[in-house]
Amino acid sequence: MGKESLSIVKIGGNIVDNPEALELFLTDFHRLKGRKLLVHGGGVMASKMATQLGIETTMVQGRRITDAETLKLVTMVYAGWINKNMVASLQKIGCNAIGLSGADGNSIPAQRRSPIPVDYGYVGDPDPEKTNVEFIFQLIELGITPVFCAITHDGKGQLLNTNADTVAYSVSTALSKRYATSLYYCFEKEGVLRDLNDPESLVPSMNHEESEIYKQQGVIANGMIPKLDNSFRAIEKGVKEVIILHAKNLLSKRGTILVNTPGGNKIQPSDNR
Amino acid sequence: MGKESLSIVKIGGNIVDNPEALELFLTDFHRLKGRKLLVHGGGVMASKMATQLGIETTMVQGRRITDAETLKLVTMVYAGWINKNMVASLQKIGCNAIGLSGADGNSIPAQRRSPIPVDYGYVGDPDPEKTNVEFIFQLIELGITPVFCAITHDGKGQLLNTNADTVAYSVSTALSKRYATSLYYCFEKEGVLRDLNDPESLVPSMNHEESEIYKQQGVIANGMIPKLDNSFRAIEKGVKEVIILHAKNLLSKRGTILVNTPGGNKIQPSDNR
Repeated sequence: MGKESLSIVKIGGNIVDNPEALELFLTDFHRLKGRKLLVHGGGVMASKMATQLGIETTMVQGRRITDAETLKLVTMVYAGWINKNMVASLQKIGCNAIGLSGADGNSIPAQRRSPIPVDYGYVGDPDPEKTNVEFIFQLIELGITPVFCAITHDGKGQLLNTNADTVAYSVSTALSKRYATSLYYCFEKEGVLRDLNDPESLVPSMNHEESEIYKQQGVIANGMIPKLDNSFRAIEKGVKEVIILHAKNLLSKRGTILVNTPGGNKIQPSDNR
Repeated sequence: MGKESLSIVKIGGNIVDNPEALELFLTDFHRLKGRKLLVHGGGVMASKMATQLGIETTMVQGRRITDAETLKLVTMVYAGWINKNMVASLQKIGCNAIGLSGADGNSIPAQRRSPIPVDYGYVGDPDPEKTNVEFIFQLIELGITPVFCAITHDGKGQLLNTNADTVAYSVSTALSKRYATSLYYCFEKEGVLRDLNDPESLVPSMNHEESEIYKQQGVIANGMIPKLDNSFRAIEKGVKEVIILHAKNLLSKRGTILVNTPGGNKIQPSDNR
């Protein structure tokens, strides 16, 4: 007998920070058929709150440096305000959600990142091998929809700030032991675009080899690089499919589908020069 | 066959705000035998954070007026910072805790309090009849220790600030359907004291009738009144025992035991005059 399907959806900070867009998104999320799990960011709101509190936000390579004050801030914003409001909104529309950090039920143990070469502070990287698959599985099989914020812990009493894309990657990979998992990275673009200003330039599908060519061409750059790296690692480790798409297209699944077809190179290096 | 025992422990804001006292308390909590559940306050920390953010704290009859800004603040502090740190600390010592608000798993639905005679704002009162007993029961039977913060929801998407003593009362009463429940109200006094400055003046046990006499005598006053009202209501609705005690005495259970013995009046009204 095949595994049940599980949709793991990651929603980013820009939509989390927009109440109308968020409500539409949560309604679509609830309409997704079958078992599902949500992972959310919240960096935009955290940065605003940091300003309000007079805490300086330091970013290196798109990642927040998390000192003690910043850890307190992001834990309050991600695990407190955003997570609980999202759960209350989902409950309102009939989705039996439960909000979790990686500390809850020891669901996502992580390791504090080495301070060399860059000391990111209280930042952790989860290891899919250590994710508490059985606990998350039991919740889902009780009919519950887990909603994860991007806060984890080291098992020694320390909370850790974690990249939400990485949490989604890690949970998807781990849960592939129990489910046929599809991972949806929702953000504010249509997917991978040949021309960032033209939604019609969407690349509908891509394998790892092709993504390397797009990187060389500069089509894939900045924040998209770690997202794609996570995606292809997830596919290599058993995730059935990864789709990068605009949050509004969650139900139609229109976006860039990442596929695991070695040698299936359909583009020419000269395509976009 | 009798019901399994469940210890429900409520810990107040002063201990939550003291890292050393909190660590000792959590260690004792973990040592309590059998199934257990924790409810925590956090008002002291919320008031400090309110000052830092320039939010004015208005209290009426010992209860916080919760406007939109204050709701955001208490949700961040209670459900975010305090709750997740407590869970991480419990995980560290081997207690498989999960942090919850009343919105999570729709565990504690509440009703927004009527604005007449006092408009407390986004404040809710849970109804034990609506508490999601089966969900909390299932978690506990999976070997998980629920840790509740005092944030609930109205089922219509609105989070609500709720008195932590009332959450403990409500959860204890509701779970009495499934367990033989003991409710421990931990705070920074030895229990009910005849003389507030003398820990030796502890009243070791008390029934409802006696508590009324103590109220008339002024022995029971201020914050102790709602705590005792909750306690006797809990006993009337099936909670096996309620003990009011200092957090440091959780394991010895030395405090004021509230008993359900009508007519068992052992004090004379003239005792303390």
